[in-house]
Amino acid sequence: MMIEENFKALEMRGDELVLLDQRLLPCEEKDFICRSVEDVFFAIKDMVVRGAPAIGGAAGYGVYFAAREACGDRDKFNRLCDYLINARPTAVNLAWAVNRVRKTAEESGFSLDAIRKDADDIVSEDIAMNRKIGEIGSSVIPPHATILTHCNTGALATCGWGTALGVIKTAFYEGKDVFVYADETRPRFQGARLTAWELVRAEIPAALIPDSAAATLIRDGKIDLVILGADRITANGDVANKLGTFALSVICKHYGVPFYSAAPTTTIDFSTPSGDLIPIEERDRSEVTMVNGTKVAPDEIGVYNPSFDVTPHQNITGIITECGIIREPYDMNLEILRRTLGRQNA
Amino acid sequence: MMIEENFKALEMRGDELVLLDQRLLPCEEKDFICRSVEDVFFAIKDMVVRGAPAIGGAAGYGVYFAAREACGDRDKFNRLCDYLINARPTAVNLAWAVNRVRKTAEESGFSLDAIRKDADDIVSEDIAMNRKIGEIGSSVIPPHATILTHCNTGALATCGWGTALGVIKTAFYEGKDVFVYADETRPRFQGARLTAWELVRAEIPAALIPDSAAATLIRDGKIDLVILGADRITANGDVANKLGTFALSVICKHYGVPFYSAAPTTTIDFSTPSGDLIPIEERDRSEVTMVNGTKVAPDEIGVYNPSFDVTPHQNITGIITECGIIREPYDMNLEILRRTLGRQNA
Repeated sequence: MMIEENFKALEMRGDELVLLDQRLLPCEEKDFICRSVEDVFFAIKDMVVRGAPAIGGAAGYGVYFAAREACGDRDKFNRLCDYLINARPTAVNLAWAVNRVRKTAEESGFSLDAIRKDADDIVSEDIAMNRKIGEIGSSVIPPHATILTHCNTGALATCGWGTALGVIKTAFYEGKDVFVYADETRPRFQGARLTAWELVRAEIPAALIPDSAAATLIRDGKIDLVILGADRITANGDVANKLGTFALSVICKHYGVPFYSAAPTTTIDFSTPSGDLIPIEERDRSEVTMVNGTKVAPDEIGVYNPSFDVTPHQNITGIITECGIIREPYDMNLEILRRTLGRQNA
Repeated sequence: MMIEENFKALEMRGDELVLLDQRLLPCEEKDFICRSVEDVFFAIKDMVVRGAPAIGGAAGYGVYFAAREACGDRDKFNRLCDYLINARPTAVNLAWAVNRVRKTAEESGFSLDAIRKDADDIVSEDIAMNRKIGEIGSSVIPPHATILTHCNTGALATCGWGTALGVIKTAFYEGKDVFVYADETRPRFQGARLTAWELVRAEIPAALIPDSAAATLIRDGKIDLVILGADRITANGDVANKLGTFALSVICKHYGVPFYSAAPTTTIDFSTPSGDLIPIEERDRSEVTMVNGTKVAPDEIGVYNPSFDVTPHQNITGIITECGIIREPYDMNLEILRRTLGRQNA
């Protein structure tokens, strides 16, 4: 029996896309209903839905709405698709999903059934990958394990189940006695707002910690392993992920604690040789200086707010994918995976 | 010429103790006037004034108010002093300052002049120590230096000038070209609220960062040294300090970046052999789950919120005190210092 989440963060009900409004979590659990491209655009832009795979899932249905609204007007359809892609310009899954379903639209002669099916497939493929990542990843979790995680990588960040948090949930539902420490994940508090909420909903024993509390727990032997996600994995196994990942990896390396990244193979960017080639995007200063609209720092202070950091492959015990766990030597093992998948390198 | 702060966080004006209300920073700069023991008790309890040395400074004047209010009634005086000590039971400087001035009261036959002078002396001695720490510490700062600091160790945390931040200010006013990265310091945001405010007031070029951003800056050679304070230093040189200090020390050690703690010798606890003997106090869950009265985590999630962490002396390049910089071997050098100071060990 496959255990499901006891909530749905992203689901088509009839001809409506129903999203759990993540702007309101954890204070309120309220659905946000999308009936048009405009609604999906707003939901992505305003972060009703966030997390790259979840954005991709929502965007697929956005294209379905676009096809309905265009009523066969090809120019209008393409305008609506381009519009949708611009909801969050940096999210690669967004453009990928829109262009995939757009292509299906073209190829099917704008068959609404075919388009809807392709959007459904994006969601079911993502969930299937996450289930597989969960099964494979659970093998590295001992029967009694205290696990540290960072940011949100659960059902809220994906089309369902999750990646790193999916591994933890799989282990828990397999009957393993797990305890989770969740980093609050400054500056946007995804750990506090979203992971903590998912852990409570899944009834997994857990504690939320300030990000800085992890180091002492790791040193004192209170963490059996760290497992977290990945925004982008380069051809040598370096992992770009939420700010705070790199610091954790150094502490784990220093104290010999296993450190895993869990992500679908679609996260692997075979065309970038190593992590130091990834430009570090800076995010808005207000993420650091304001919390819920209240000022926590003076207006005149400078701010440095990088969106993510890069963890060198030397610090990573394994990368858990739906195709298996990639380990050292990463460059060779990722090259084998690339050929197996039939993916291009640059 | 000695440069002063362009603000006063703690000052007697006539018979009033004027505190800069730290609860309102950085949004508002407003004085809080104390005219009674009750006022000082409230100011300490409600964190109008915080930082161990600053609390000690305020408490000295609290005893002065107590002597005035007791009008020679010795029992009443002692009751008021005991009451004051309970404003924050964990702050050692509070009890130390109250008992010091109480003794002066006894010995002087409750001379208000003698009591007032002793309270003044606590403040001027603390400032003099901090100035000396600043001078000595500035010697480790190169002419062009990017410095990382954590929490607040400036004029707001002390009776004036500050410890670690005092070192940075001294170097800056000596004409060194410094740039400061200030950790925001979760969960209480002392870096964002207070250090950033002091840096702006001192016009020192600086940027505020999420705590997790420090690691990449250190790895990438962007930090010349880390300097921060200490809550308690044990006889072997281990440093208990604000949560986040230990993680920084591991990253610095790993990448060969100098890591200094600055504190007066009164912070050294010669009676405790090593840091692992210090019990880690846990603070309230609401520090992690609430920010400015707004919820950032679900009510049902567990929380682990240790107040500080312990950095082993092996990770510390030097401890900057008013008596000089203590370096390896810490146990021997601290023992020499203990004898020089004529302090007891346990």
